[in-house]
Amino acid sequence: MSFDILQEKIRKMKNPTVAGLDARLEYVPEHITKKYIDAYGETRKAAAEAIFEFNCGLMDALCDIVPAVKPQAAYYENLGWEGVEMLERTIRYAKEKGFYVIADIKRGDIGATASAYSEGWLGKSKIGSSMVSAFDADCVTLNGYMGSDAIKPFLKDAETYDKTAFVLVRTSNPSAIELQDMVAGDRLVYKVMAELVDQWGKTTQVGEYGYNRVGAVTGATYPSDLRLLRKMLPNTFFLVPGYGAQGGTAEDVHYAFDQYGRGAIVNSSRGIMCAWKKSDKNGADFGEAARNAAIEMRDAIKAVTPIL
Amino acid sequence: MSFDILQEKIRKMKNPTVAGLDARLEYVPEHITKKYIDAYGETRKAAAEAIFEFNCGLMDALCDIVPAVKPQAAYYENLGWEGVEMLERTIRYAKEKGFYVIADIKRGDIGATASAYSEGWLGKSKIGSSMVSAFDADCVTLNGYMGSDAIKPFLKDAETYDKTAFVLVRTSNPSAIELQDMVAGDRLVYKVMAELVDQWGKTTQVGEYGYNRVGAVTGATYPSDLRLLRKMLPNTFFLVPGYGAQGGTAEDVHYAFDQYGRGAIVNSSRGIMCAWKKSDKNGADFGEAARNAAIEMRDAIKAVTPIL
Repeated sequence: MSFDILQEKIRKMKNPTVAGLDARLEYVPEHITKKYIDAYGETRKAAAEAIFEFNCGLMDALCDIVPAVKPQAAYYENLGWEGVEMLERTIRYAKEKGFYVIADIKRGDIGATASAYSEGWLGKSKIGSSMVSAFDADCVTLNGYMGSDAIKPFLKDAETYDKTAFVLVRTSNPSAIELQDMVAGDRLVYKVMAELVDQWGKTTQVGEYGYNRVGAVTGATYPSDLRLLRKMLPNTFFLVPGYGAQGGTAEDVHYAFDQYGRGAIVNSSRGIMCAWKKSDKNGADFGEAARNAAIEMRDAIKAVTPIL
Repeated sequence: MSFDILQEKIRKMKNPTVAGLDARLEYVPEHITKKYIDAYGETRKAAAEAIFEFNCGLMDALCDIVPAVKPQAAYYENLGWEGVEMLERTIRYAKEKGFYVIADIKRGDIGATASAYSEGWLGKSKIGSSMVSAFDADCVTLNGYMGSDAIKPFLKDAETYDKTAFVLVRTSNPSAIELQDMVAGDRLVYKVMAELVDQWGKTTQVGEYGYNRVGAVTGATYPSDLRLLRKMLPNTFFLVPGYGAQGGTAEDVHYAFDQYGRGAIVNSSRGIMCAWKKSDKNGADFGEAARNAAIEMRDAIKAVTPIL
């Protein structure tokens, strides 16, 4: 089962982290950007090619120590279709390099529309008599504000194609509380969402590690909620954003794991992508800097949470 | 202001409706699909070109009677980057034909990521010293589960580039109630969201018709909620899905309008796109059938709600 594959990668590398591939052009070292702007002008094509080279360099530097990557769709869509084409190439390259690929799309729409999204991101579309895949990620992030109608079509493809999904429960941002911490009856809204995630998950296959196909996004920046959610959702894999730049620490994310250090993966995006900006080499060493940052993050988490 | 432009178009055509451009390949008449599969095989390219011809035919048939179109991103992303490239062409063609373009993307992500989405869909990205646009819609739909952090970056671009957004409040689908109807303190969750929409809107420009830049998605399938929300949000433009196939009627959507028949636009997707399937001409008349369906919808709404 897909989450078993992820957990095995994590155990093998002793590293429960995922590298965000969320590059803005200003994160890309000048020598790369200049090459493509010289070739293509100040165009979306130039930006897309510069970011692709940067993404591939990051993945080359990280592939033996980081089990997963998480491209965020926004940082491709801002370059229009050229960005989206490059996202497809990034996902293909990531899979070739052995990464588990979490497409961070946070889609949430109903019925037939959710089915169409799912076809594009996890499944296949029917064209004539052929079944054709598009982005073909291992996993997506989803928004459940619209309820089951927005989630179930993805679960069908998840079973068919052995994929997984993380649903937003407790997000890591400051304004998360505006809706998610309203008291709904005797519970907070995000706990209602947690219960929905649990119900949706129970309709799917459970892997050997005890986790079903429906994970939860649970931010590192609310550690007491993490602890509570870990108890509440023993069969739910967690994707934990908010480490590093947003303020989450290794101590905070510790609560996301079960007693064997399993069942969670912690994201870092800028901390890894932009590590080269802390050296004075103008990004000539961006891969090495990313690798060192990833090792530092791994070791900080491992020091608090042994990965068994 | 952008919503004034939309309202003017609605008044001129006496038609407060928007045509969804949500084509699956099975909605496209066989003679079109066959042409492109013969040329390109059973590929995403063939599917994208067939849907583009269909979209253009629909827009040609509707452009003098329907003020707006709403392409749903899912039905382009399911064809990967070729679909997304075709979405860009669809939006360009729609604007050439004079339509107000609502990109139905329901994005909801935080801070820097929301900014990147906004650059792509409403604003521009910085590449070298150039500001470059991508999808450049007039309006987007957004999901506010993550709170203000997910909405405000779009509002900045909305002010800069004269654009608008609709935030999901009360969605039209059956499982909407799972989260949106939880009692949050003394209010339902969707009313909390409505208050947030009102607050966000108050930070933006108000147009001549009294509507600010932050609209609300309020489904036709919950008419008593529509009535309540119309009272609660006098300065909020409504996008009303759920008419027709989902069960909403002209009587139901009446509650979305103010006393002058303003401040709301009602969506129909399959009812217009698939109208040709009710004739026995194999889709040779798909534009005419769509036009007749759009006129029928307009007249049904106008009979209950005069557009002044």
